[in-house]
Amino acid sequence: MKAYDVLIVGGGPAGYTTALMLKRLSPGMSVAVIRREERVLIPCAIPYLFNSIDSIDKNILSDESLRKLGVEIFVDEVASVDLNGRSVKTLKSGELGFKKLVLATGSRPKRLGVYGEDLKNVYHIIKDYNYLREMIKAVKEASNIVIVGGGFVGVEIADDLSKTGKNVTLVEVLPHCLLKNFDEDFAILAEEELKKRGVNIKTGVTVSKILGSGRAEKVRLSNGEEIPADVVIIAIGVEPNTDLAKAMNLRIGVTGGIVVDSCRRSSNPIVYAVGDCVERLDLVTGKPMLVQLASAATTDARVAALHMATNTSCRYIGHVGAFSTRIGEVVLGAVGITESRAREEGIEYVVGVAEAVDKHPTILPGAKTVKLKLLVSKTTGEIIGAQVAGGQSVAELVNMVSILIQSKTHLLDVLSLQVATHPWLTPSPVTYPLYTAALDAYKKLR
Amino acid sequence: MKAYDVLIVGGGPAGYTTALMLKRLSPGMSVAVIRREERVLIPCAIPYLFNSIDSIDKNILSDESLRKLGVEIFVDEVASVDLNGRSVKTLKSGELGFKKLVLATGSRPKRLGVYGEDLKNVYHIIKDYNYLREMIKAVKEASNIVIVGGGFVGVEIADDLSKTGKNVTLVEVLPHCLLKNFDEDFAILAEEELKKRGVNIKTGVTVSKILGSGRAEKVRLSNGEEIPADVVIIAIGVEPNTDLAKAMNLRIGVTGGIVVDSCRRSSNPIVYAVGDCVERLDLVTGKPMLVQLASAATTDARVAALHMATNTSCRYIGHVGAFSTRIGEVVLGAVGITESRAREEGIEYVVGVAEAVDKHPTILPGAKTVKLKLLVSKTTGEIIGAQVAGGQSVAELVNMVSILIQSKTHLLDVLSLQVATHPWLTPSPVTYPLYTAALDAYKKLR
Repeated sequence: MKAYDVLIVGGGPAGYTTALMLKRLSPGMSVAVIRREERVLIPCAIPYLFNSIDSIDKNILSDESLRKLGVEIFVDEVASVDLNGRSVKTLKSGELGFKKLVLATGSRPKRLGVYGEDLKNVYHIIKDYNYLREMIKAVKEASNIVIVGGGFVGVEIADDLSKTGKNVTLVEVLPHCLLKNFDEDFAILAEEELKKRGVNIKTGVTVSKILGSGRAEKVRLSNGEEIPADVVIIAIGVEPNTDLAKAMNLRIGVTGGIVVDSCRRSSNPIVYAVGDCVERLDLVTGKPMLVQLASAATTDARVAALHMATNTSCRYIGHVGAFSTRIGEVVLGAVGITESRAREEGIEYVVGVAEAVDKHPTILPGAKTVKLKLLVSKTTGEIIGAQVAGGQSVAELVNMVSILIQSKTHLLDVLSLQVATHPWLTPSPVTYPLYTAALDAYKKLR
Repeated sequence: MKAYDVLIVGGGPAGYTTALMLKRLSPGMSVAVIRREERVLIPCAIPYLFNSIDSIDKNILSDESLRKLGVEIFVDEVASVDLNGRSVKTLKSGELGFKKLVLATGSRPKRLGVYGEDLKNVYHIIKDYNYLREMIKAVKEASNIVIVGGGFVGVEIADDLSKTGKNVTLVEVLPHCLLKNFDEDFAILAEEELKKRGVNIKTGVTVSKILGSGRAEKVRLSNGEEIPADVVIIAIGVEPNTDLAKAMNLRIGVTGGIVVDSCRRSSNPIVYAVGDCVERLDLVTGKPMLVQLASAATTDARVAALHMATNTSCRYIGHVGAFSTRIGEVVLGAVGITESRAREEGIEYVVGVAEAVDKHPTILPGAKTVKLKLLVSKTTGEIIGAQVAGGQSVAELVNMVSILIQSKTHLLDVLSLQVATHPWLTPSPVTYPLYTAALDAYKKLR
């Protein structure tokens, strides 16, 4: 039986990054990845395969870096795990041994659970090369497309399809799209941009049925409305894939994810778990949550790999949910908790807001308005959340706030913070939105 | 005699932001600004007045925000200060009283000290509306322009003029441009881009003489070379304007700037000093230094205003020198110390480097390569410097590192950091350059 220092189950960003980090930290370690997929997709860009990216083959997470570092890859599945014997049985590659096992088993799409969900031309977002290739073909041939779910995946697909001239309808059960990441004031910015681009948005309704003989023809909503649909895309979120973890009797949390410690070790310390399949703790609320983002998955991977390779102390202090997206020309970012979340959790907070133009003088070509909302804890004076909207610079601006939250920065330290500014690149240092929002919050806190 | 809670001398970004912050924090405070200029220029955009910005009138720091908040503005000069009587004598507005005085007296251009420096069509970067208007006119009429000084101002002017078809020569005494902000490996990226755009770069030479009868005709270099020049622009840096501070016997530091404490109070605690005229302490080396950037000036302003208005403790822990610029399509940013500076100061460090594409998959249109160099202290494991080159995203990426340095972040915390990523907006979370550079540094540190 071939045995490895670390055996990783799952080849998405979590498994991939774990392998990469391990070999970079400890080239002498033997590392293998077992994964189902022949070719692994870059998950974050899946929404753009329907229009912007002209071939699915351009959206592959290349194995080259792993192979160069000597990571072995098995395209296979794990049938069973023997934790005492430290080995797994695979379907095709026989038995493989390990000193440490990493579960990077990811997630699978939630089902709507309605009549017609299994009709032809009804698709879920399954990260599988062949499935998606067929789905892309169907979408390209369709005239009427209904997307169910106004989270970021549904919104991004709607955005990408809005450039094609197809008739696109987005159905969301909540009063607005993106309400998991944003408060209403920012969520509507996304919605307005989508509407401007011709997307039909139906909020506050659910899907009752998908109708059609053999293949999808229309979608019936809870308000009785029927929408023609050549293709239905269901993107209502994912759930952790914990089959293997359950078979191993690892502890599963209230959210359904695998419980891990700050080093990403499961209830059995020789088994780590990383990515979509784990349960995280929210840094701000301290509560368990699920987060299914590649960025979060790779943070798990780095933390776990660092611990396995070097045994240094683990500094992961909880999830902050840093997130960004682009709809049309509007970039939106969020990190930490929203106001609605803070209210739900009974967290006392103040809000600081700012608007600034992202070049100075503001007449420079290409200048855009940036809008920032900062949430500050009334108890600690620390930054606990932010939402940002504007141009390209939003993506790293939200990351600046992400660092401020992770380093538990007090509002007063934001006011004395030093940043680089430049006429062509940023707002003026006089009107830099982080300062203005911090000042606004500070006045409410006093 | 009219008296103010706070009287500010100087109306540039430092004085402007101090007044703005004071009135926003304490609307009841009486605040006045005495400044020489009828119209205040946005200093950072001065390099772009020669081409990109078609009128100097579009580059004015508007008084509107100040006036709305009730800040009084005197276009005048201070003749003398009576600290015991807490009043100033002005040239035109009589005597004005104060409880606290703020010196925001800025800086003035250094002179080359060579023959011909006072010929017509030889200009220094003087932040004066009428002077600059005349200078812009002369530059627009010129065919051959020689810029003396390859710091960021000289480089930015060269960049802006490179788009005009004029014959532009840049003269720098050091072996490369921008060596105050960057190490050679990054400085040459700016130089290469300027050369590609047709700028003649002469490094490692000084100006011996400016020749001409009445007006500049050519520049003679220390190597004997003569360069035709219809206009000569001297941009070799600035020195703090401390005339008033000296007249008041305030303590002046070794660098020539006004000595201030962490609250930006001078040696006389009723007098604060902010902006280009102060001496700062380098956060990394602890040594006194001069920094003449509007961004740094506004940080002073916020710190001083916060202290005057609220008497909260001052959290300014030293200067990090966050800086960014754009040359052609190349954006460069730097923060903390460079390798050459670390060597000079005897600071033991390791370097981590990374290169990544700023979109994922990397085939997305508009994708650019980002190059990052991270300096980490061998003693503390903390991030002490960074240099970045790439596209627009560099500007906020350098600000992320600026926050990491200011919060004295350990390298291991960078590896477990959470950031938002998105296909159209950032590198992939697998290859995000901050992680790769941190990992590279970590391997060298072990």
